[in-house]
Amino acid sequence: SKKYRIAVIPGDGIGVEVMPEGLRALDAASRRFGIELEYQHIDWASCDYYLEHGKMMPDDWKAQIGGADAILFGAVGWPEKVPDHISLWGSLLKFRREFDQYINLRPARLFEGVPSPLAGRKAGDIDFMIVRENTEGEYSSVGGIMFEGTEREFVLQESVFTRHGTERVLKFAFDLAQQREKKITVATKSNGIGISMPWWDARAAEVAALYPDVKWDKQHIDILCARFVLQPDRFDVVVATNLFGDILSDLGPACTGTIGLAPSGNLNPDRKFPSLFEPVHGSAPDIAGRNIANPIAMIWSAAMMLDFLGNGQGVEREAHDAMLAAVQAALKEGPLTGDLGGKAGTTEVGQAIARRI
Amino acid sequence: SKKYRIAVIPGDGIGVEVMPEGLRALDAASRRFGIELEYQHIDWASCDYYLEHGKMMPDDWKAQIGGADAILFGAVGWPEKVPDHISLWGSLLKFRREFDQYINLRPARLFEGVPSPLAGRKAGDIDFMIVRENTEGEYSSVGGIMFEGTEREFVLQESVFTRHGTERVLKFAFDLAQQREKKITVATKSNGIGISMPWWDARAAEVAALYPDVKWDKQHIDILCARFVLQPDRFDVVVATNLFGDILSDLGPACTGTIGLAPSGNLNPDRKFPSLFEPVHGSAPDIAGRNIANPIAMIWSAAMMLDFLGNGQGVEREAHDAMLAAVQAALKEGPLTGDLGGKAGTTEVGQAIARRI
Ligand SMILES: CC(C)[C@H](C(=O)O)[C@@H](O)C(=O)O
Ligand SMILES: CC(C)[C@H](C(=O)O)[C@@H](O)C(=O)O
Repeated sequence: SKKYRIAVIPGDGIGVEVMPEGLRALDAASRRFGIELEYQHIDWASCDYYLEHGKMMPDDWKAQIGGADAILFGAVGWPEKVPDHISLWGSLLKFRREFDQYINLRPARLFEGVPSPLAGRKAGDIDFMIVRENTEGEYSSVGGIMFEGTEREFVLQESVFTRHGTERVLKFAFDLAQQREKKITVATKSNGIGISMPWWDARAAEVAALYPDVKWDKQHIDILCARFVLQPDRFDVVVATNLFGDILSDLGPACTGTIGLAPSGNLNPDRKFPSLFEPVHGSAPDIAGRNIANPIAMIWSAAMMLDFLGNGQGVEREAHDAMLAAVQAALKEGPLTGDLGGKAGTTEVGQAIARRI
Repeated sequence: SKKYRIAVIPGDGIGVEVMPEGLRALDAASRRFGIELEYQHIDWASCDYYLEHGKMMPDDWKAQIGGADAILFGAVGWPEKVPDHISLWGSLLKFRREFDQYINLRPARLFEGVPSPLAGRKAGDIDFMIVRENTEGEYSSVGGIMFEGTEREFVLQESVFTRHGTERVLKFAFDLAQQREKKITVATKSNGIGISMPWWDARAAEVAALYPDVKWDKQHIDILCARFVLQPDRFDVVVATNLFGDILSDLGPACTGTIGLAPSGNLNPDRKFPSLFEPVHGSAPDIAGRNIANPIAMIWSAAMMLDFLGNGQGVEREAHDAMLAAVQAALKEGPLTGDLGGKAGTTEVGQAIARRI
């Protein structure tokens, strides 16, 4: 039978609350489909760990989890304890970069039972994939401050795009489009950001030429965001830089009702390093500790993990499908958490989904 | 009587079609309220001019229009003729920078008669102002390409934030908040963009301390976009960097039904240089030349111009109010263009609004 080692990192805030429900669903699915999962529970990569140790992770973090088959991640961040840029650059963003998880794959799908905030949209109307570059671009650590504390003070922040990094995310996205509806939208802002974005457009045109059967267009990020609201049904695959992908993958799921459902895979498609699976929603300290967070994004992320481990095939794919079916049934029949108009707690929703699996 | 000189720049695409309607409305309002407007019609700053002259504007553009009291601007851009970054950096973005129009003010308001794409939102539910930094930040011309054409190729694009530029936009926004509901949201992305954005947050905290009566919070741009869709009623003033303001000011108006209504003022509040007023929608070459573009954003922009010229007072304010009232009546009673479900042409809508004024 298949056996995988999973590093489990709950993190902060509601990450700690949704993780047990992710594991509960995984346990049910792995039992049913004969997959053996060995969990390595990690208690670092949290703001509490930082307050105690002055760093987010132990120095040997890479040795500790680098051998895992995948990482299941809750959420990191609690700005009242540690500034976000310190907690995130010291954990999640480090994983993405050092494990070369250069694809961040994020579905946006409107399910039955979930009311869309958009007027007149029903289940099936919205169903697209956002492919986000995940290691470079606008999220760079290059830059600095000059004339600090004076009137002349200014700060520089470099965006860095490599040919290597840009081509591989575009190719991944065009490959994906080829397996789906053979159409793709490339997010850009070349009218305003005049050096890097025209260059990005040129890379897109080059890669597009390798896929003559895929219909593509490019759209500036401002109007693209507007169209997510006005015409969400016209998208199938959207590929974007790190920052634009970040924005689109909160906005897309918001259009499908709640960001409490949206999962994501931070993928190292080369499989040299473990990939990381996490809900899009983040740690939400404002609602933490009250058992009201929606566990579905976590459960769906765990399902994505199995599917990636099985290469989209085999018992892993079956387990993924069963988990997603259980989620869809729960959305239709309840119980639901408050963000979806229900009254159930995190645990109750998690248990109901695990039972269905 | 009051007399102003207005530089009129239609530009490209639907800019050329909506401009006459902006002028028609202005003529009606200025006649009624005794304001004398002298138009200086400019035939450069268009892609056709570029094709003929190899540049977007004549070398003495600043001398030609620098003495105007304001600039009324249609839209620039026609990517099939000239790449966007060339046409825009050669015109609009040059005006913003060289005339130090450091505020881009953009209202988002849901009017009666305009169906929102958001479920269950009605007129009055959405009414906020976006204050966008308009001269620096992510729109910089600093950067370049290295190892071009090789596998090692990469591109750098600098974002540049000055203390001067950041403080003044924040102060403008907090001043505005003080005149409105005394609450403001600062857009950021300090968890991901780790040098400039924490610095921006620190500037926001400093300025906020000068306004103890204004309630403020900061939100990361990803979740902020999601909340524009999920809870648009919770915003009153939103202040943002150049790029984030660009995104939010397409998304906000999209949530109010159509970006065909949204006006903007590129303001030089010091009044050392002319300010520029333009619709948010752009040149839309795909629908140009068919008399179907909505002229309302242009008309509303012209109204904003009068109001700014009059410092929010006097006959100019009255003229502004009359123009906006005519727009609101037209939205309620028609005629409407296709984007709002009507069948009327650009001219017909413009004429009906001018008649009402
Ligand atoms: C045309 C483009 C350069 C411009 C911008 O990004 O500023 C436009 O989108 C706007 O919002 O005025
Ligand atoms: C927490 C933050 C750094 C992160 C990001 O911006 O990538 C999050 O918003 C996400 O989308 O995964």
